[in-house]
Order: sequence, then structure tokens, then C-alpha cells
Amino acid sequence: MKIILDAMGGDNAPDEIVKGAAQAVAENRDNLTLALVGNEEIIRASAAKQNIALDEHFEIVNTTQTIEMCDEPAKAIRTKKDSSMVVGLRMLAEGKGDAFVSAGSTGALHVGASLIVRTIKGVKRPALATIIPGGKKPYLLMDCGANVECRAPMLHAFGVMGSAYMNKVMGIAVPDVALVNNGAEESKGTPLYKEAHQLLKADPNLHFIGNIEPRDVPDGNADVVVCDGFTGNVILKLTEGLAKTLLGMVKEVFLKGLTTKLAYLLVKDGFKDVKKKMDSEEYGGAPLLGTARPVIKAHGSSKAKAIKNAIRQARLCVESDLVGTMTEALAALEQPKPEENA
Amino acid sequence: MKIILDAMGGDNAPDEIVKGAAQAVAENRDNLTLALVGNEEIIRASAAKQNIALDEHFEIVNTTQTIEMCDEPAKAIRTKKDSSMVVGLRMLAEGKGDAFVSAGSTGALHVGASLIVRTIKGVKRPALATIIPGGKKPYLLMDCGANVECRAPMLHAFGVMGSAYMNKVMGIAVPDVALVNNGAEESKGTPLYKEAHQLLKADPNLHFIGNIEPRDVPDGNADVVVCDGFTGNVILKLTEGLAKTLLGMVKEVFLKGLTTKLAYLLVKDGFKDVKKKMDSEEYGGAPLLGTARPVIKAHGSSKAKAIKNAIRQARLCVESDLVGTMTEALAALEQPKPEENA
Repeated sequence: MKIILDAMGGDNAPDEIVKGAAQAVAENRDNLTLALVGNEEIIRASAAKQNIALDEHFEIVNTTQTIEMCDEPAKAIRTKKDSSMVVGLRMLAEGKGDAFVSAGSTGALHVGASLIVRTIKGVKRPALATIIPGGKKPYLLMDCGANVECRAPMLHAFGVMGSAYMNKVMGIAVPDVALVNNGAEESKGTPLYKEAHQLLKADPNLHFIGNIEPRDVPDGNADVVVCDGFTGNVILKLTEGLAKTLLGMVKEVFLKGLTTKLAYLLVKDGFKDVKKKMDSEEYGGAPLLGTARPVIKAHGSSKAKAIKNAIRQARLCVESDLVGTMTEALAALEQPKPEENA
Repeated sequence: MKIILDAMGGDNAPDEIVKGAAQAVAENRDNLTLALVGNEEIIRASAAKQNIALDEHFEIVNTTQTIEMCDEPAKAIRTKKDSSMVVGLRMLAEGKGDAFVSAGSTGALHVGASLIVRTIKGVKRPALATIIPGGKKPYLLMDCGANVECRAPMLHAFGVMGSAYMNKVMGIAVPDVALVNNGAEESKGTPLYKEAHQLLKADPNLHFIGNIEPRDVPDGNADVVVCDGFTGNVILKLTEGLAKTLLGMVKEVFLKGLTTKLAYLLVKDGFKDVKKKMDSEEYGGAPLLGTARPVIKAHGSSKAKAIKNAIRQARLCVESDLVGTMTEALAALEQPKPEENA
């Protein structure tokens, strides 16, 4: 299996990307080749500096451009033809690799994947899904911001794709799918959410557990949490922001004096566990679901561990034929229902 | 001044309502009368049980019905004519009191206030605003769920009303108003949010600081955070849920063993401060903004302290003539602009 890696994307490129790549290969020497796409000279210098041997498990594809976070996404994809992201996506589209992982600009990756890799039949634009740490278990939130305006069948498709992902990649036999809404009753929400509720409920292939109120989302009661991209972006970013604010407040308590610092020593390990539980790096990247081949977006601030985990995710997508499963499941939605033929 | 109080509304009625009322009067014996609306026998029994003297600062308005949390809001307002909520709202509409406070059903209070108390000119439905504890300072979030579907001029009006509230009731000279959005640039978001951004930006009477990303909301950088009711409901409830989940995780760390329990003793006071900072009871109720007279919704689980604070909020609304200020500010929005006359 060959995973294509954007070696120039993200805040810590290329050092942490190269380091994460080496860790991924160390875990999987039997069947993993990584194509590092980026400036060859810089990649080799980074590897040398970190004493990483770029052996037969690595190939380097030299490129001369990099898409920056501040670049306008559509323009960057159109004009930076020799960027690590565009070249990597083109390799994926041409079958020169099985999946693509990038920690670069989310917007550019979304546009590039849509235009170059294309989408599964029935999907107009891929959705951005993210695994978020929850109280009981991590959950998949989608869409996290790729589609700020949605129609009800799109929310239905998010449920179908998210369920396939949690089953194939996260190994959950029957994923619980829930719809974000401002109340448990199916009469709640905007017309969009009322219609989406009915579509999800009527789907015999989904285990739809109904509406989930935002207060219950962090607990991790559902495996897949469906919403439009504007709402998903609010949930994703508010969760990050609030966890930071709250843990910051707690930390301040410990820094107040000598005795509280002493207290910290007694609970230090426990707090590390809480932080680890809330650490999105543990779960790797955010899959773009609905692309014709697997594309994984790693967090822009990813360090080596997150890159390694994103590569593992990409590998699981390929091994489980996630795209094939989703294609079949979405095709079933497009079939006219028996009663409609009667 | 006379504040009308729904003595039967909320999870802890009437005991905590009566107790909170007594605390409010104790703080303000010079100029405060409270009209306790509800079953007189039950109210008197509750006061007697708690050794509260219902002196000349209290009047009791006997009613025979109660609107329950499970009642369908519009139907309850229409059919339960002798409920504490409907009678209280009617007293307010008729000028038999200066403001109304209830911890009962949010939906019923919203419908009842709209129908009985009516709205300020230019406001179709009142918005539900909530003071949420933030890292740096508390902020007013609106709409929190009363208007799940909004047009851009409504979001503009939320900014205007919220700014007036933070100025008059919370004493902030020039409140910073921000618009929730999935990016800082004004080109971000759905068409609704793009249009609202332009309206808020063009208003010379607002101190609009631009879009606020959800990750920055909990820090408390803005005084007024504007969004549609669906999004506001997500922010409000997710904040509650996540704070509970996270502080629960932290608490578990302390309960693990003898030494961690010892550690807890050392930081106990500090944690109480954090909990207090995150405690919405500190800030009292959620004003329904846009009603023709002040209506305050206290949290359904309010205890005496929250009721006392909600009464104080109602008093500040009356003393500062909040409704008059909002009426003028909203009338200014309706005026054609000079350049449009040219």
C-alpha cells in the first residue's frame, strides 16, 4: 500500500511530517510505502537532521511550490500546479497511491480534492468529518465546515457516510447516528432539520437514535453526530475553545501557591489522562468523506504523533474499502423506493 | 417598583421562588414590592415552612392552574387562562407591575410574552438572550433559541438590543458586539451571515468588532455575541454540557485515592472559584429582549439565589428604562438613511 503525504503542509512541516512518516513506517514495515511530496532538498535535510533513514519504504516526489494557509483556496489550487498538495492529489487521482494525507490548508484541500480527486456519485462536495473526544467515547462530527449550506438529503448522506466510516475504520459494529437539534422531539428545529430527521429515520440501513441536544453531544452518546457545516464548525471550534478556557482556569488554580503546586504533584498523572482524553491528536486526522479516493486532513498544528495516526487512518480507509462501501450505500439512497414504483 | 413573580414556575417552585423573593426584598426594602402569582394556599404554606414573613412588600395573586414543562407552549397559553404565567403576563400588560420573572417553560413564556405583553415596534418575536460566563468576562449571547430561523435584519436588531442591555443593565459603557461566524473574514458564512455582517458593520451606533470564531467565544472577548436561534441554542447548551463533562472528568481525578483526595483539600477553594465563575446562577436570568415590558426567564433549575438575581435584573431593566432605549434604537434602524433620500 502506498500513502501519499503532503510533506510541506501544516505549521510544523516538514520536520514533524517526516518524523511522523518514519514512525508510521516503523509500525508497519510489512506493507507500507510513503510518497513524500515536497521540496526534495528540504525533505532530505529534515530527515538527515533527525537521523531518519529514508529507506526503500519512502519515495520522494519533488515539487517547487507550497500552498500557504493565507492563500485563497480555489486560486491556489488553480495556479500552484507544482505545489505539494496539487501534485499529491493528482497522484491519488491517477492511481499512483492509495490515499492522501495533508496537514495543509483545509479550504485548499477541500477544493483540490473536489476538483482533482472528484467525488462519489451522489455527492456534490465532500464533507469534512472530525473525530472529537467525548466523555464516554469519541464521536464523529460531520459536516465540520466544508458545506455551510445544506439541503436535507445532504444531511442524510452525512449520516450514511459517517456510519460507514465508524464501522469500517473505527470498528463499531452498529454505529449510533444522531442529528443535532434544539430539542429531542422530531418536530424541533428549522425546516431543514425537520426534513433531515424524517429521511434519517426512514433509512432502514442506519441505526438512527434521533435528535441529540447540544448539551448531550460532549458526553459521547452517539457515534456519528450529523449537522450542517455551519453548525458543525460551531461545535468543533467551541469544543476546542471551551476545553482550552476551562483547563486553563483549572491550571491557574494549581499555580496559585506552594501548597497548590504540591497538590498538583499528587494529581498530575490523572490530569494527563484527562488531557489525553481531550487531545484530538490521539485520533489523528479528519477524513474528507465523499471523495472518490481517501483523503485525510491532519490538524494544521499536527506533530509527528498526529501525522502517524492520520497515516494509520488512511491505511484503514484503504484496507476496509471505505470508498466502495460508501459508493454502494449512497447508490441505495438514489434508488426509487418500492412503494414509489407501485 | 413592583416585580411580578411566577411563584409556580420551575423545578423548585414554590419553595425556592418564595425564598429568592424574600432575599430580594431583604436587599431592597426601600422600593420593592413583589407580586407572587400562584396558588395562595401553597405559597403561604411554603413561606410558613421556611419562616418567611410575607409582609407589606409582598402581595399574593391567587391562581388555580400551572403550566407544566411538558405542556405544548401555544396550547398552554391559550387554554390555561388562570395559570400563574398567563395571569402574571396579563398583569404586566395591564400595567399592574413593572416586570415579570418566571422560571417556568421557556417556550410558553416566549409565546405568552409575544401574545400578551406584545413586542416593541419592529420586533416580530422577542429574542432570548443569556448571560454566559466567559474566561475574561461574562457575555450576552442572543438569540439562544427563540427564533430558530432568522433574516439578516433580525440579527442586526439582536446586536442593537443586546448592546442596549449590556449598557443599561450590566453597566458597560461601549459594549463590543460580535457576530458568530466560521471565520474572521467578512466573506465567511452563509448568505444570512454575510448580509448580517454588513448591516452590523454599517450601523454607526454599534461598536461592532466583526466576526467571532466559535473557538474564541468562551474566552469572553465580546460583550454581545449575535447569532440565529438555532446556532445560539447550540452554543448555550454545548457550553453547559461541555463544562459539566470536563469538570466531571477533573473531579474523577480527585476521587481516585487517598492522596488525590488530600490534594483536593489544598485546591478546594480555587476550584470553588472556577465553578462559581462558570455558574450561570451568578448572573440570574435570561431576558426576553424585544417585549414591550421587561420579561426575565430564570433557569428552570433556579434556586433562591438565581431567583434573587433574576429579580435584580428585572429591577435594573425597569430603572434604566431599557425598553424605552431599545424602542428608540430600533426606530432609528427603520428610518430611511439620508443617502437613500437623496
